Amino acid sequence: MDKSTQYKIFNDPIHGFITVPKGIILDLIDHPYVQRLRRIKQMGLGYLVFPAAEHSRFSHALGAMELAQRTLNNLREKDTTISPAEYEATLIAVLLHDVGHGPLSHTLEFNLITDFHHEKMTLAVMKYLNKEMNGALDLTIKIFTDQYAKKPFLNQLISSQLDIDRLDYLKRDSAFTSVYEGSVGIERILKTMRVHKGNIVIEKKGIYAIENYILARRLMYMQVYLHKTVLSADILIRNIFRRVRELIAEGEKLYHASPALQFFLENQPSAKKGVSTKVLEQYLQLDDNDVFQSIKYWQHSDDLILANLCKRFQARSLFRTTFLNKKPTKKLVKQVKAKTQKTLKEKGLPYDDESSSYYFCFDESYSEAYRYENEGIWILEEKDKAVEFSKAADTQNIIALTQPVVKPYVVHLKSIDVEG
Amino acid sequence: MDKSTQYKIFNDPIHGFITVPKGIILDLIDHPYVQRLRRIKQMGLGYLVFPAAEHSRFSHALGAMELAQRTLNNLREKDTTISPAEYEATLIAVLLHDVGHGPLSHTLEFNLITDFHHEKMTLAVMKYLNKEMNGALDLTIKIFTDQYAKKPFLNQLISSQLDIDRLDYLKRDSAFTSVYEGSVGIERILKTMRVHKGNIVIEKKGIYAIENYILARRLMYMQVYLHKTVLSADILIRNIFRRVRELIAEGEKLYHASPALQFFLENQPSAKKGVSTKVLEQYLQLDDNDVFQSIKYWQHSDDLILANLCKRFQARSLFRTTFLNKKPTKKLVKQVKAKTQKTLKEKGLPYDDESSSYYFCFDESYSEAYRYENEGIWILEEKDKAVEFSKAADTQNIIALTQPVVKPYVVHLKSIDVEG
Amino acid sequence: MDKSTQYKIFNDPIHGFITVPKGIILDLIDHPYVQRLRRIKQMGLGYLVFPAAEHSRFSHALGAMELAQRTLNNLREKDTTISPAEYEATLIAVLLHDVGHGPLSHTLEFNLITDFHHEKMTLAVMKYLNKEMNGALDLTIKIFTDQYAKKPFLNQLISSQLDIDRLDYLKRDSAFTSVYEGSVGIERILKTMRVHKGNIVIEKKGIYAIENYILARRLMYMQVYLHKTVLSADILIRNIFRRVRELIAEGEKLYHASPALQFFLENQPSAKKGVSTKVLEQYLQLDDNDVFQSIKYWQHSDDLILANLCKRFQARSLFRTTFLNKKPTKKLVKQVKAKTQKTLKEKGLPYDDESSSYYFCFDESYSEAYRYENEGIWILEEKDKAVEFSKAADTQNIIALTQPVVKPYVVHLKSIDVEG
Amino acid sequence: MDKSTQYKIFNDPIHGFITVPKGIILDLIDHPYVQRLRRIKQMGLGYLVFPAAEHSRFSHALGAMELAQRTLNNLREKDTTISPAEYEATLIAVLLHDVGHGPLSHTLEFNLITDFHHEKMTLAVMKYLNKEMNGALDLTIKIFTDQYAKKPFLNQLISSQLDIDRLDYLKRDSAFTSVYEGSVGIERILKTMRVHKGNIVIEKKGIYAIENYILARRLMYMQVYLHKTVLSADILIRNIFRRVRELIAEGEKLYHASPALQFFLENQPSAKKGVSTKVLEQYLQLDDNDVFQSIKYWQHSDDLILANLCKRFQARSLFRTTFLNKKPTKKLVKQVKAKTQKTLKEKGLPYDDESSSYYFCFDESYSEAYRYENEGIWILEEKDKAVEFSKAADTQNIIALTQPVVKPYVVHLKSIDVEG
Repeated sequence: MDKSTQYKIFNDPIHGFITVPKGIILDLIDHPYVQRLRRIKQMGLGYLVFPAAEHSRFSHALGAMELAQRTLNNLREKDTTISPAEYEATLIAVLLHDVGHGPLSHTLEFNLITDFHHEKMTLAVMKYLNKEMNGALDLTIKIFTDQYAKKPFLNQLISSQLDIDRLDYLKRDSAFTSVYEGSVGIERILKTMRVHKGNIVIEKKGIYAIENYILARRLMYMQVYLHKTVLSADILIRNIFRRVRELIAEGEKLYHASPALQFFLENQPSAKKGVSTKVLEQYLQLDDNDVFQSIKYWQHSDDLILANLCKRFQARSLFRTTFLNKKPTKKLVKQVKAKTQKTLKEKGLPYDDESSSYYFCFDESYSEAYRYENEGIWILEEKDKAVEFSKAADTQNIIALTQPVVKPYVVHLKSIDVEG
Repeated sequence: MDKSTQYKIFNDPIHGFITVPKGIILDLIDHPYVQRLRRIKQMGLGYLVFPAAEHSRFSHALGAMELAQRTLNNLREKDTTISPAEYEATLIAVLLHDVGHGPLSHTLEFNLITDFHHEKMTLAVMKYLNKEMNGALDLTIKIFTDQYAKKPFLNQLISSQLDIDRLDYLKRDSAFTSVYEGSVGIERILKTMRVHKGNIVIEKKGIYAIENYILARRLMYMQVYLHKTVLSADILIRNIFRRVRELIAEGEKLYHASPALQFFLENQPSAKKGVSTKVLEQYLQLDDNDVFQSIKYWQHSDDLILANLCKRFQARSLFRTTFLNKKPTKKLVKQVKAKTQKTLKEKGLPYDDESSSYYFCFDESYSEAYRYENEGIWILEEKDKAVEFSKAADTQNIIALTQPVVKPYVVHLKSIDVEG
Repeated sequence: MDKSTQYKIFNDPIHGFITVPKGIILDLIDHPYVQRLRRIKQMGLGYLVFPAAEHSRFSHALGAMELAQRTLNNLREKDTTISPAEYEATLIAVLLHDVGHGPLSHTLEFNLITDFHHEKMTLAVMKYLNKEMNGALDLTIKIFTDQYAKKPFLNQLISSQLDIDRLDYLKRDSAFTSVYEGSVGIERILKTMRVHKGNIVIEKKGIYAIENYILARRLMYMQVYLHKTVLSADILIRNIFRRVRELIAEGEKLYHASPALQFFLENQPSAKKGVSTKVLEQYLQLDDNDVFQSIKYWQHSDDLILANLCKRFQARSLFRTTFLNKKPTKKLVKQVKAKTQKTLKEKGLPYDDESSSYYFCFDESYSEAYRYENEGIWILEEKDKAVEFSKAADTQNIIALTQPVVKPYVVHLKSIDVEG
Repeated sequence: MDKSTQYKIFNDPIHGFITVPKGIILDLIDHPYVQRLRRIKQMGLGYLVFPAAEHSRFSHALGAMELAQRTLNNLREKDTTISPAEYEATLIAVLLHDVGHGPLSHTLEFNLITDFHHEKMTLAVMKYLNKEMNGALDLTIKIFTDQYAKKPFLNQLISSQLDIDRLDYLKRDSAFTSVYEGSVGIERILKTMRVHKGNIVIEKKGIYAIENYILARRLMYMQVYLHKTVLSADILIRNIFRRVRELIAEGEKLYHASPALQFFLENQPSAKKGVSTKVLEQYLQLDDNDVFQSIKYWQHSDDLILANLCKRFQARSLFRTTFLNKKPTKKLVKQVKAKTQKTLKEKGLPYDDESSSYYFCFDESYSEAYRYENEGIWILEEKDKAVEFSKAADTQNIIALTQPVVKPYVVHLKSIDVEG
């Protein structure tokens, strides 16, 4: 059989050719639930700072699936047995790993569904699809939920400190943001990966590629994902939605939200005890466009605050973020509030406690480049001895760099002075 | 004065750093009319074939403005006088050159406004902005409309066979589609550009860079812009909108269109005698999201045809395109229609003449890599003698390659056999 | 068996990882005859114009071998049977395809051995190695000499209008010269290559990649390989060696040539009737260093002309090249000669007919981007019908561009004016 | 004046276009002493491991000069006054910074001249050139030797923890070795560099680019410059030259060394009290070719050891390097010696103490990614406060990573087992 007829090829600026096996995988890619990821940006509001970072979760999902193929092929070269069924199930798991994301991902998560976790939602979608497909995703779900004890390394490829998701998104996001320093030597990592006693390990000669990977991840958090302006745009969007829910709670009729968005704003269901089919179906109608369309029209809302916040977003007239050297004091909070209220008053906007609360926010950013307790990346130091990366030769010092970084900050009106 | 404080820097995967002068240019970039371009994809439906081609007209506009700066700086190095006002006005013209584009650009143009031309619309928006800004764009408009007889080369940078628009979009589109062969050596073109008797010319040593540019453009048309699947997706979207207008004409109430989209579908204004302020203001509310949101909900329309077409789009279940060796014969048209109707009937869909007309389409694609009559690219062969590119040494043969290419094709249901 | 232990991996800026099979192929790479290619620059004197084009025939040979692997793997995916022995023999043939090149390749060829052809020399080296290796290269030699009637496509990969040699060197040379426009989309070409009735063909969808390949080759000839300054440096080196042989003929003792170089300068053997073992063994001692070392010391020769030519080379004080619109007239030749002699006289250098002949040269450059008679690249237009590229749809016009380009030129002293 | 006529443009794969000012700088580039750098590989023997790392010190010197221009232009944009004379002198200093390097740079340094330091030699060459050019390099020398107290930052660009030399070579070497992870975001570093109180500082927003730069440098040392095989090739070459000097000391006549190489082998001058004109002139005749030519012919030496070592080099039959966990014990040294002697004996080679000493070597590698005492990189944390990088916010931990890394190792015959 001519194998080349069994594939469809896509072009990708990150990985060159992406080879999609026809059959269930191509069917899934064309499924509306996966196509929906085309309308959810991979980096949420990051495009406001990095103008070309407009890529979607869909192209990331495709890219990750391609990497999964390359990884599994490499592992097979190194004598790891992976059956065709396991191979396919792993590709599917990687392809679908983000299928549960909602509009603007992390920004809006809790504003639409409480007790939300996108992985929980991904699993719900997988199960829903599995029913539709008469159990074709049984093995995928087993692997995704780490119930496939026979080959734990398959789950590690999907979710670990060195999973394929991270490899693709670091490479992709650093390319589209043009933050060159966050780029990762994926090829070398894949080449030095192997299975040892059922787990993924990295051969010794790959140790500096791992060091580079961890530090690139740190850099991407510091310079991109937790960029000041991204943080401030996040707060703006959250406050827009907080305001909308407030208005709804007060009995206002909401114009210009799509049916699905309206459903969530009015009901704000909880995911604590799982997600009902009804909630799931509405959720799968949502994408970034629902948010952006609404904001476009809410600019003309009668509510002064909502209109003002939405106009700010449309004209990229964002708040400013100031990092603080320590947790904010009560005095600082009071000060910022007073200054905000003064400014709002001058502009003829409502400035009472509730109203002004939409114009500033104290929070902290958190990042952790590498977590080595319980999980961690393992280096095959000798033929039969794997050690966790932070304990390997030449790397002891790196751990210092991977401590979680917590930075308090305040988001506030640009016209206000805040001492950082 | 420290000039570095007069700029804001953006990252761009295509050009590295983009330097935005503060003041009117940065203000324009943050203006909602320009920010709106973030929500219009540069390549329309191209992303359906090239998954990472999700970039917007906004990032293209920024990139083109950066190239304009580099070009003008180079020309100044070569002793061409360009005043600060001319410099700024040219940057603005390049920045705004696409501001009149509507959702899905070429796909939908005539479905929303008749007698539409996106350049006409761009000029209308420029004038509207100019009023808002008290004449700050006077010189920009003069240059854009080629009324600035003093320095015709400034207009040539904005609109000619070798304008900055093309340089940026060819480079950008080839990068995001990963169609490597369509890439253009922009730097060499800029380095060899100069002004000769008021017009842009290319120094002799740049002649192969120009040959490469023209052939890259040809290749991008053949392989990307007029890709079979892009053509078929275009027809699908057009037929969706034709159906919707048909339904409106029949008096159906249209659910789930945004106010602005509804305005155009119901009124379908003409741009023949210019665009009224009212039409313009509605137009500037439109972007790709209006289209995608509507299609998402029209899947559930009571109209079987509309619902079916929209579902096809959402599941990427597109039509097939077959290129024809010659203009279609009446016989072929009849054949395709009959087969289409047979298939629709089998699927339980309406299959009368009107209904079936949404499921196939005969058309032809047109491309012209280089047009040398009247316009053309000029090569400075000797100190004082510029010749049009097709007449320059070593290039006579290339003209054969730049003839317009016209290819008849038919878009049809996949299940139908058509002889190409 | 863990296949990853059967390979050695090298890094390459052009292809990423190069995978070298252990065993005979790695042994051959480490063989002094192949290692010798490290000391022969791929682009001869091209580095004088493109400073980073310092790469050797060795890295090209490795790169080509890697491409051969990828090509053969792709063909196997498409159901072409290639036995392990055929696979290995083809890799070896590609690895060794340039092993017969001498110092400064084309520049010096005929100055050292008359009736030289580097492919003839390559075959001689292969046979010599084959004896040393007890016939291990039998199949390689069969394929290399197109005696393997069973699978003609294997020879086509080594030597044809679309062979692996060209794919690697175009890509590599365009990268190292940074002549971006000469770059080739190798991956797409490999992906669309297949075997049809025993011959290499390109699938229809690869047609624009082929167009781009041919035009990139044309551009590299025009802009790089036949660059004015490269042509003039070539003449300088040839004249240095002509002078040296003249001096030897006159009975002068030659200082500062290595034993092998001395052998060739004194004997100038002919390859007409093959190459003796003795000549071959001396030849395999030669590399670029022999030439450069000698020139360094010949600067101090007592012969004024030799010393002057060598000093010119060391200080990059090259001649100038002027292209002519037509074959040179007798008058022009006379003129250039007279001017040259006048200048030499002024500088106190010998200026008689013989002496001045080292300071100018009339010649013509020749390039042919694509030769379609007898050979040619074949496109698989339909399931069972392959047509030669120039006859395929959409490409008829391209043939104009691939006509041989012949350009007369004169190389002369910089201080002399010549009308081009 | 048309400034574009004042430049000559070269292509470079690393920086794109390199713009060389005509006049003294172009003259210097064409000077035989600078052209000589074309024949000295930037990475010495690194090409034995990274086959494409064949680039010369010449292309590095050109690239660094280009970066110097970009840096100085950026500083001028930020209001730092740099006179045309200072500008030119700095470019020259950067261009010439490596002009004192000898063949195989670090490998051979002490074997040719005792008490050698390449910077001392560079200064000697500069002074020699300065005499030839009647003082045109006076200011260059002042800046190079840090005697230009008026603007210390100019010297810092030439020699510091963040000098232009490092920026170019890290970028260039990582590209040619294809060790992707060692790449540096030069553009961002240049953009955030400024002069503060006479010294180079980096603006706060460049802090992660600096972190990345230091870690990339660390990685290049670990993975490239101190690669096992590079270390072993170094030892092989050193031992070849030790053997040759030994033979000369014993009164053997040395065949096949060029006059200049012969001069150094026979005299081995000291640079302790400076370098005489005679020594300098001989030195400037030397390049890599002298070494490689000699080794080629010394393969046929009557001395068994010399012949054997040279054959090993030609056939890439190198020694093996084993890293040791601690300084070698006497026992280990004895063991390695005994095993070496046993093997040599079996091969019929001389195996006494002196003879065997050419076949193994204990040494240690040393690298220091960043040195912050006395020197260091300074970050402009606030408007008027610069702090050394290791004391800046978010970077405290990085210092751990920049500790000098010292690794003992032994180079030995491949057939010998050594416990690491």
